[in-house]
Amino acid sequence: MAKSKASVPIGVFDSGIGGLTVVRALKRVLPNEDIIYLGDTARVPYGIKSPESITRFAVEDTRFLINRKVKLVIVACHTVSSVCLPELKKNFSVPILGVIAPGARAALAATKNRRIGVIGTQATIMAGTYERVIREVARQEKLGSDVEIVAKSTPLFVPLVEEGWVDNDIAILVAKSYLLSFQDEGIDTLLLGCTHYPLLKSMMKRVLKKVTLVDSATATAREAKKILAETGICRNQNRKPNYRFYLSDLTPNFMEIGKRFLGEPIPFVLRASIAE
Amino acid sequence: MAKSKASVPIGVFDSGIGGLTVVRALKRVLPNEDIIYLGDTARVPYGIKSPESITRFAVEDTRFLINRKVKLVIVACHTVSSVCLPELKKNFSVPILGVIAPGARAALAATKNRRIGVIGTQATIMAGTYERVIREVARQEKLGSDVEIVAKSTPLFVPLVEEGWVDNDIAILVAKSYLLSFQDEGIDTLLLGCTHYPLLKSMMKRVLKKVTLVDSATATAREAKKILAETGICRNQNRKPNYRFYLSDLTPNFMEIGKRFLGEPIPFVLRASIAE
Repeated sequence: MAKSKASVPIGVFDSGIGGLTVVRALKRVLPNEDIIYLGDTARVPYGIKSPESITRFAVEDTRFLINRKVKLVIVACHTVSSVCLPELKKNFSVPILGVIAPGARAALAATKNRRIGVIGTQATIMAGTYERVIREVARQEKLGSDVEIVAKSTPLFVPLVEEGWVDNDIAILVAKSYLLSFQDEGIDTLLLGCTHYPLLKSMMKRVLKKVTLVDSATATAREAKKILAETGICRNQNRKPNYRFYLSDLTPNFMEIGKRFLGEPIPFVLRASIAE
Repeated sequence: MAKSKASVPIGVFDSGIGGLTVVRALKRVLPNEDIIYLGDTARVPYGIKSPESITRFAVEDTRFLINRKVKLVIVACHTVSSVCLPELKKNFSVPILGVIAPGARAALAATKNRRIGVIGTQATIMAGTYERVIREVARQEKLGSDVEIVAKSTPLFVPLVEEGWVDNDIAILVAKSYLLSFQDEGIDTLLLGCTHYPLLKSMMKRVLKKVTLVDSATATAREAKKILAETGICRNQNRKPNYRFYLSDLTPNFMEIGKRFLGEPIPFVLRASIAE
């Protein structure tokens, strides 16, 4: 049983194509695993939708992956991870991993002065989940309760990345407008709470020179490895893995934009009917 | 029959809240008419979706309004008007009016040197509808076939408006990046092909000093008045009209952002189940 389960894929979903940055990290950390990716491009973006709609979409996305027999579901979408992860875990028996807790742990490990900044979409920040989860992790791991968190929504970053403007004058001006106030707040660590933001990381680094930037994709991939190892369903043999990419809407520029997120060309894409 | 039909509302739909700029124009041009507005905020934005999905959404939106007994459907969404207006007209017997043809007529009336620029979302521009419709109108109205059209997608403008950044350094830099090349193209008229863009109009005017900016909301409202008058279903008595606002998703900031688009506070909002 455990052996046959090891040979099935990991499922990853996101509201769109940003979650491919998590797939990129998984390929590095778990190079033998097959991956099924679902991007709900017909209903992207989730960040501006109500919690009720986000939860309904997330349940449908998870069911789509579980119907394809995955051994682990990774919620690459920060909005979903923030708004309804407990709801998903309650509804399905397959292990489900979000991106918030791994990111929170990495940020707590990185900070020296105990002042952490968090940026994300409006829904992620309004839900206040990062603040709650960072405090929970700090308590669980006996890191004390004195951590200060400054959270801010940065809605222009996603369209900037999708336009490919990750390092021009406009991107820098937007980053300064959103981020420079973090310096006055005295944070030493900034958690990038959205799948798109890693593509802006090197530019942000120049704007916030003295701040450590933490993105959660690698942290999430490492946690996935740990879960698979603990439950004995890791795929260890050296092999060429299979990757399948599903989108609920075949957007015209997916191949071009997707390549930027994944870090390599996408071979082909399948159309997903999500409300199945 | 005609008399009772005159007393039913006009229906207006958009993928989100941008279409409220068309409602604002309708209130000015047709002050006695009741209006039902539908914003498909659960699936916004349409501009990045495939033609198949856009068409399905538009049929569902139109059916929602017709089920509420409207006498005219105005498609305030430029993406839908561009991608599938003939499809909608084929499927429903109620008159349906888009925003493209009225905008095209207004631009042709405004240009002196016969060089017109068009800006819009990626889907609107990729569909090439403005180019086709401007040429059709020029032919029909014997304005000659020598008109030159330069079209360009400007995807950052919508999130800028939604962030409320309509006149700051960033908005000006984005506008310069998108628009200054139009000067080299020698256009004298720029058609704003998206419901959100009127809110950027005064800032754009400073960037493109010598260019006439045309937005289609008022042109569409005037055409609506003409259709109602021609079919004898205009509501002429002086009265206080009723406005009803439906959204498919009750987004947290609707009241605040909606007020900016409508030009006055929105009294209350109803939740729409579109796939009914």
